[in-house]
Amino acid sequence: MTRTIIESKTKTVVIGFDEPFCVIGERINPTGRKKLAAELELGDFSTVERDALEQVACGAMVLDVNSGAVFTNKMAEDPRYADNNFVEPPLMRELILRIQAITDVPLCIDSSVPGALEEGLKACEGRPLLNSVTGEEERMELVLPLVKKYNVPVVAISNDDTGISEDPDVRFAVAKKIVERAADFGIPAHDIVVDPLVMPVGAMGTAGQQVFALVRRLRDELGVNTTCGASNISFGLPHRHGINAAFLPMAITAGMTSAIMNPVRLQEMEAIRAANFLMNHDPNGGEWIRFAKVLEAVQAGASFAEASAAASSAASGRRGGRKSRG
Amino acid sequence: MTRTIIESKTKTVVIGFDEPFCVIGERINPTGRKKLAAELELGDFSTVERDALEQVACGAMVLDVNSGAVFTNKMAEDPRYADNNFVEPPLMRELILRIQAITDVPLCIDSSVPGALEEGLKACEGRPLLNSVTGEEERMELVLPLVKKYNVPVVAISNDDTGISEDPDVRFAVAKKIVERAADFGIPAHDIVVDPLVMPVGAMGTAGQQVFALVRRLRDELGVNTTCGASNISFGLPHRHGINAAFLPMAITAGMTSAIMNPVRLQEMEAIRAANFLMNHDPNGGEWIRFAKVLEAVQAGASFAEASAAASSAASGRRGGRKSRG
Repeated sequence: MTRTIIESKTKTVVIGFDEPFCVIGERINPTGRKKLAAELELGDFSTVERDALEQVACGAMVLDVNSGAVFTNKMAEDPRYADNNFVEPPLMRELILRIQAITDVPLCIDSSVPGALEEGLKACEGRPLLNSVTGEEERMELVLPLVKKYNVPVVAISNDDTGISEDPDVRFAVAKKIVERAADFGIPAHDIVVDPLVMPVGAMGTAGQQVFALVRRLRDELGVNTTCGASNISFGLPHRHGINAAFLPMAITAGMTSAIMNPVRLQEMEAIRAANFLMNHDPNGGEWIRFAKVLEAVQAGASFAEASAAASSAASGRRGGRKSRG
Repeated sequence: MTRTIIESKTKTVVIGFDEPFCVIGERINPTGRKKLAAELELGDFSTVERDALEQVACGAMVLDVNSGAVFTNKMAEDPRYADNNFVEPPLMRELILRIQAITDVPLCIDSSVPGALEEGLKACEGRPLLNSVTGEEERMELVLPLVKKYNVPVVAISNDDTGISEDPDVRFAVAKKIVERAADFGIPAHDIVVDPLVMPVGAMGTAGQQVFALVRRLRDELGVNTTCGASNISFGLPHRHGINAAFLPMAITAGMTSAIMNPVRLQEMEAIRAANFLMNHDPNGGEWIRFAKVLEAVQAGASFAEASAAASSAASGRRGGRKSRG
């Protein structure tokens, strides 16, 4: 049975065919978030910290931490800042230390810069998920030794030196190549989480069916867990959360076991919680019944993040025992 | 390729693996709707007519017409009304004539009384769906000859003389028996739409997975289309529309091709429209984009039924050509 183990200092998350769907929160990512990048440039981590807590309250089981910031002001003063190999490693370390200080969920270290991946691995307690290796030769030769050295699981994205193929058979072959190369390094298949690459259904009508078929093959033929950037499916479409909220249960039915996504979106999280129940991964519906209370608070006017935070602090209050009213 | 053809006088609906999911509207059913039964007893068909139009506007492609009314006042005066074999046949005829007069979608004739099924078959224009036969010997011997005589498709429910089995293998065997018995009557498998029976997931944690596995087997091994009473999955649970709205895309991914359900529920219909798109059954997302406008109207305060009715009357206005403003 394929089980990918991800750990923080105190918590274990298992990605697997018989586990609840693993929601990896994508919000801590300065790429395309200019305001966040500007804050980080000033050493302001308040948005990162708020995003970390909010995502966990809303149901993220793992937090992706991406260090892909561009520091435009510093770059003007010091040309070294134009190089992400210079910017990202210390930023990744700082992000991880800050986030680890306030949450207890495992982390996913996300960078295109190998030096940032290694700084992240050094700073992380537990067993983080590394994001990512691809089928590109250079990338495999840089990242797989880190995966082996630190004994961590890794996200494998199914593109290679020829780019991203629209042919799902090619994407499957790339995933297979990465799994085989990893084996050469002594990395087992259960530590590879394949991202089969989700195309926008608005541009390619077969995009959904491609993913469903690929996920099934990856599971049946390679025995690997899978993940994806879920919101890509609805890129460019109106009312895209409705598309995402159908896509996720469908992908789960096909065998998808995790996604990198925004957990602060109620519609998607409701779909995932219902899908967990329907996959028999929510014994007696306990999680669903708890979630229904959050939905009631939202119907009464709260935001999803507020309602989730209230529910999770009530739960930790209960865990902490009855509080004195004195 | 399995194609189940259902027709009204003017419209054809195809249930099939390569077709949009077929939504069969369940609202015209006096069983458990006391107020509706009382209206029908008084010869008042206004609710039936409104429900017919509303369901079609919201996206029903076929309307189920169930004649299972109990006429308690008439029963007190005339003991013959205690017998559904007396009540249902003329009621079914009247329901069908009324509904056919105001809508052009195909109908699904739904009764446990064979006489009502035959009256419905006589009154229906086109090629209705018959609902239903089971694996019970007596039922097969009564209903299958009607299916053959009128050359119509039929819903086959996978229970038999031993009741409803909790074992999905037994339910599959019952479906197989019905398909084989139908073949003895000269009825092809593509005219059998199997209902594998959906159990409540709140009572049986495996209920969802049972349906997904059964639907896949029914498709792969028997080559039949499938349907279900979708809302049964969420029976007894809080916020059940959230469960239904995940269940439907999941069942569609497994191969389910229709459901008997309430099409006036936005959350479920949104999930189905998104699933159609993701199954590549909505070329260029045209239906999704139209539906997104209905969602916008709902966000602006309209009810789903109102917004759907406005959208469909606008569409028929366009089809009728540009109206003069004079």
